[in-house]
Amino acid sequence: MKVLMTEVNFSEGKDENKISQIKDALTSVENIEILELNSDPNHNRSVFTYKGSPEDVLEATKRLSKKAVELIDMTVQKGSHPRQGAIDVVPFIPVKDVTTEEAVEIARKYGKFLGDELGVPVYYYEDAATREDRKSLPKIRKGEYEALEEKMKDENWRPDEGPFEFNKKSGATVTGARFPLIAFNINIDTEDIEIGKKIVKTVREKTGGYKYVRAIALEIPDRKCVQVSMNLTNYEKTAIHRVFETIKFELTRYNVNIIDSELVGPVPVYAMTELLQFYIKLTDNFSAEQFYM
Amino acid sequence: MKVLMTEVNFSEGKDENKISQIKDALTSVENIEILELNSDPNHNRSVFTYKGSPEDVLEATKRLSKKAVELIDMTVQKGSHPRQGAIDVVPFIPVKDVTTEEAVEIARKYGKFLGDELGVPVYYYEDAATREDRKSLPKIRKGEYEALEEKMKDENWRPDEGPFEFNKKSGATVTGARFPLIAFNINIDTEDIEIGKKIVKTVREKTGGYKYVRAIALEIPDRKCVQVSMNLTNYEKTAIHRVFETIKFELTRYNVNIIDSELVGPVPVYAMTELLQFYIKLTDNFSAEQFYM
Repeated sequence: MKVLMTEVNFSEGKDENKISQIKDALTSVENIEILELNSDPNHNRSVFTYKGSPEDVLEATKRLSKKAVELIDMTVQKGSHPRQGAIDVVPFIPVKDVTTEEAVEIARKYGKFLGDELGVPVYYYEDAATREDRKSLPKIRKGEYEALEEKMKDENWRPDEGPFEFNKKSGATVTGARFPLIAFNINIDTEDIEIGKKIVKTVREKTGGYKYVRAIALEIPDRKCVQVSMNLTNYEKTAIHRVFETIKFELTRYNVNIIDSELVGPVPVYAMTELLQFYIKLTDNFSAEQFYM
Repeated sequence: MKVLMTEVNFSEGKDENKISQIKDALTSVENIEILELNSDPNHNRSVFTYKGSPEDVLEATKRLSKKAVELIDMTVQKGSHPRQGAIDVVPFIPVKDVTTEEAVEIARKYGKFLGDELGVPVYYYEDAATREDRKSLPKIRKGEYEALEEKMKDENWRPDEGPFEFNKKSGATVTGARFPLIAFNINIDTEDIEIGKKIVKTVREKTGGYKYVRAIALEIPDRKCVQVSMNLTNYEKTAIHRVFETIKFELTRYNVNIIDSELVGPVPVYAMTELLQFYIKLTDNFSAEQFYM
């Protein structure tokens, strides 16, 4: 059974009535399983995470988006989180028996709907990007909603779908496909941020580390420690245990220990397979399908 | 949300038409999630594993049982697997937010239904047992269906529910409640079964080991090794990693290594929490609810 997940980021996190209407539009599609509905009033942003068959997820996301575009007015929207549109970012994430190509196809169908039916300019990102310089969300979103009118006077900002003109009410939407991401933090027993930065350099792709690791070092004054805060962007190719053990051995030269680690937010259970194979020498016969909850 | 699981073991594993009718009775209850439908023609036995709310699971199990009792005739049933009834064994297993007491209550309601409505003698086992000598399934099932008529002449075999007389067509049913069980095997790099037996003695409850471990040593000629084959009967109190690491250190005195390990059949994802806390020092903040599949 194919399972696709999405995390719809939209620019309303305060008005409970509007959030509730948007939720109703989503749940009007049967067989959608909601994983998390998170609304942050300070960010003035909500993230709805849900999964289902690719077709159901596409339909639910269309309905949700239609309602959100109707209710959200970007000319008056303010919040602390970066955003450039009413429907800000929509990644489609393969969970089970769905290829990246299929997820890209769903993203393209959704983008076409947003552009053609709702008149919202759409930029494809990550695995659905049509150009190298549109792979990264921060690059596309630079300057946020406020910069969009000016940016769209430039041919370089012609959207992948929808009208090539500034949409004052709805801004623009970034959508695409990407592998499930795991947020993994390791707290190390030092207050010296320089050690944290050196560790970051050894594990992240940018500076010669693992291909699917993004990392930064943060000071955590409350706990008098430093945190190596990471996103693992492909747990199949860069496994959790490998990153953990690498940081552990790199720390020995500074005589620093790992205090503890954190897995933040949703974690695909499929990421457990390699970890179990490493730590308890589980045979290849094991399948994550054996897990139940 | 409360989730209860059951594994209904019934004595038909050959006749596809009958199995299909029994399956239809089960799936006539909505919101039941099927985890595995396994039918073994040699065993002449099926195991249907499914979960849902305690009420739905109870209702589905009643419907399934009514159909199975109607279709299965124990006077002609033959198969290689031990059995004493058409509906042979039905454990109710807490998965999420269900206490053992609640699971026992469901088992009792189900037992009452079997006894009162279907006229099948019922013995409660495991956590639902009414007597110490009825805790263990092998003890209750000793002699199988063929011994039942004779056994039931003895006051000691008065059932917990249903008529105190031999039911020729349906035999008797054992039902109860138990914690989810994990089947965990460790293959060790020796052909000396004596080493396997010594390891078994160190880890299983019976001989001074961990309270929730049952274990035996087996020769695996195909792989030229010995297997420590275990059931972990309470993964919260006797965790997977602890058993693995104990066997690993006990083996050092024989200069034997672990080759690999196997998790067989369904594994509750909740069992991953302690393992992750041990191997990658995950903080207590992590909840298995973060897993998705």
